[in-house]
Amino acid sequence: MSTLEFFRLQTREEVLALYPRFPAVGAEEVHLAEAYGRVLAAALPAPEAVPAFPRASMDGYAVRAADTFGASPGLPQYLQIVGEVAMGAVPEQSLGPMAVMRAATGAMLPPGADAVVMLEYTAEHPDQTLEVRRAVAPGENILQPGEDVGPGETLFPRGKRLRPQDIGLLAALGIITLTVYRQPRVAIISSGDEIVSVSEKPGPAQVRDANAYLLAAQVEEGGGLPSHWGIVPDDFQALKNVLASSLAEADLVLISGGSSVGARDLTLKVIQDLPGAAILVHGVAIRPGKPTILAAIGEKPLLGLPGHPASAAIVMQVLGQPLLARLSGLSETYLPWGSTVTARLSRNLAGASGREDFVRVRLRQEGEILWADPVLGPSALLSPMVKSQGLVMIPLGTEGLNHGDPVAVQLFGR
Amino acid sequence: MSTLEFFRLQTREEVLALYPRFPAVGAEEVHLAEAYGRVLAAALPAPEAVPAFPRASMDGYAVRAADTFGASPGLPQYLQIVGEVAMGAVPEQSLGPMAVMRAATGAMLPPGADAVVMLEYTAEHPDQTLEVRRAVAPGENILQPGEDVGPGETLFPRGKRLRPQDIGLLAALGIITLTVYRQPRVAIISSGDEIVSVSEKPGPAQVRDANAYLLAAQVEEGGGLPSHWGIVPDDFQALKNVLASSLAEADLVLISGGSSVGARDLTLKVIQDLPGAAILVHGVAIRPGKPTILAAIGEKPLLGLPGHPASAAIVMQVLGQPLLARLSGLSETYLPWGSTVTARLSRNLAGASGREDFVRVRLRQEGEILWADPVLGPSALLSPMVKSQGLVMIPLGTEGLNHGDPVAVQLFGR
Repeated sequence: MSTLEFFRLQTREEVLALYPRFPAVGAEEVHLAEAYGRVLAAALPAPEAVPAFPRASMDGYAVRAADTFGASPGLPQYLQIVGEVAMGAVPEQSLGPMAVMRAATGAMLPPGADAVVMLEYTAEHPDQTLEVRRAVAPGENILQPGEDVGPGETLFPRGKRLRPQDIGLLAALGIITLTVYRQPRVAIISSGDEIVSVSEKPGPAQVRDANAYLLAAQVEEGGGLPSHWGIVPDDFQALKNVLASSLAEADLVLISGGSSVGARDLTLKVIQDLPGAAILVHGVAIRPGKPTILAAIGEKPLLGLPGHPASAAIVMQVLGQPLLARLSGLSETYLPWGSTVTARLSRNLAGASGREDFVRVRLRQEGEILWADPVLGPSALLSPMVKSQGLVMIPLGTEGLNHGDPVAVQLFGR
Repeated sequence: MSTLEFFRLQTREEVLALYPRFPAVGAEEVHLAEAYGRVLAAALPAPEAVPAFPRASMDGYAVRAADTFGASPGLPQYLQIVGEVAMGAVPEQSLGPMAVMRAATGAMLPPGADAVVMLEYTAEHPDQTLEVRRAVAPGENILQPGEDVGPGETLFPRGKRLRPQDIGLLAALGIITLTVYRQPRVAIISSGDEIVSVSEKPGPAQVRDANAYLLAAQVEEGGGLPSHWGIVPDDFQALKNVLASSLAEADLVLISGGSSVGARDLTLKVIQDLPGAAILVHGVAIRPGKPTILAAIGEKPLLGLPGHPASAAIVMQVLGQPLLARLSGLSETYLPWGSTVTARLSRNLAGASGREDFVRVRLRQEGEILWADPVLGPSALLSPMVKSQGLVMIPLGTEGLNHGDPVAVQLFGR
């Protein structure tokens, strides 16, 4: 009798609800040049205003807006050019009535000026007279101090993953050292007597260890640091030793294999024998991925994945990536629009009672319509994953999906 | 008079059409463990079949399918258990009529067997008799040799970017050394007399160099290797020296700044003075981004970006990333579904004749509807970019977009 039978299958949502028990990894300091993609471990207040001074946001002339009122192509206003604001320089004089100063984009506004007239609505005459053919309102074509960011304003909350534009704003503020969460260290173990290293020629009846490389790439995709712990035979003591060692060094342990009932039971027994272990999940109501195991060893999570590479990849995508996000300190909700696209299903798909079904799909544009073509095949095959661009879920408790239904395709990394 | 006026504004599509003149960077060899995200520089044929032998894809019993025909829960078939196939072992005997062997998922099928009966439709009786309650068709629950990949089949074309599942398939085939394109080296130069280093305290009227860090993160996002070439004042010889040196080392040079007309003209004059230089584009019909410059210096591209950080970021996203993709050797079309999501526009947006308008939007889910909320503000501000998740384009020659219109949001990296 399989140990699996002592456990109730849990839904995907129930598994995700267990993740808050695992704390985020610790913090470290990085330079801004290495901060892209990292997750802030502390909220960041703005140390100063951006911009720090009033600036022209267009090429043209700094003016007192009131002096331009009523100006039009038919009835231009004529003002006196009294000088030029050099880039990066503080204007040497303030602007009196009916006077203007040349100001390029980014130049500091002289005191007295409250707007910029764009170059294209002006003409310079030989006697330092400026013809202005359009009126400007106070504040037009200038940036006020603090308009981009006010001093003391919270720039970013803790748990934010830094994108290029976020890095740009930090640079503008001179924030060059950041406290971010470490990248989680993820140990990857393959188990199974039939598995040989990728650099070996498999004997008859043996296969190479595809999962270790597949999962390592998924860990990289999720912002973790993968480490390979090799292939462990289906042997109690060997498995226990490698689990104990990897748990001592890593923040998360992934073990794949044991897709046969006997191997699964062995993995489960070894985990139960580890000090401080609690098996939280043994069996999830998803396909593929039913034999998934989640355990807590003290505060550290261990995720047991199916042995079939395609099943392991899908469980890693659906359950492993959110766990990695949790350990990474990401506080943002897993934004659906960041990783999904809506398409129309190109054929009927039958559901199965009591589980969510994850179907691989290939996307195909036909005129205005984006179709999701299911790529069917046993979950033991890797090639349908390779031919696919994402997953469509057939929800629990439905009869399935129909041709033409709009579906959310959860995209694989590109 | 600005030199800009000698040039006709080009459309975004016209600019993209110039990219094939730039050759992809050279190739290098990497180990499979470092191949995630890299781009294949040569097509890869499969050296052998996957799987290499017939395997059980479910836990159960290897059978001759014909022996199960007619079996049902009401009228089970009874067969003789003659042994077990160990994982990773070659079966020692072939299967005779009315005989079965225990076989776990992944086990090699014994000669004579052509299907697997799943465990759940069987019961073992004490005398090594197996009760079979469901018939199987030939080939059911097994993987045939070559079913995943046939020998000699082209696995991947040249120009393919490797995803985790692709890495998994390569591992299964024992392909551990790969010929990939180098990551393009991208030199980043900031110009402008008002720009100071991020580690300096700007004087009044000065600003820190946000663009260098922003662009470097975007280069990383696109798979390139950024290098910082510092800040160059608006001086002909200084600019010429740094452009010449960076072009000697990098595959692509990005220069931002010179957002004022004078600085733009200076940049243009320096480029024209470089040996082998051809200015291909000076002015693009997009907003922001009109003063964009594209030049070829021999076979190498130089992209001149606006000085405003937000404008620079948008031009990098819209024109720079496709150029980086070209240099990276990516042959795949820039898949729209990989980086866009469809949402509904939450307010009217006016268009502008003669140019494409790129509007920053924030995504907001409301029940079933994903809304795109425009984040307006001058392109000199960085904070609207920081508050946004992507861009919506108002196409050329339209009057604009209306509240409720479905729009494709081109997502920023996450």
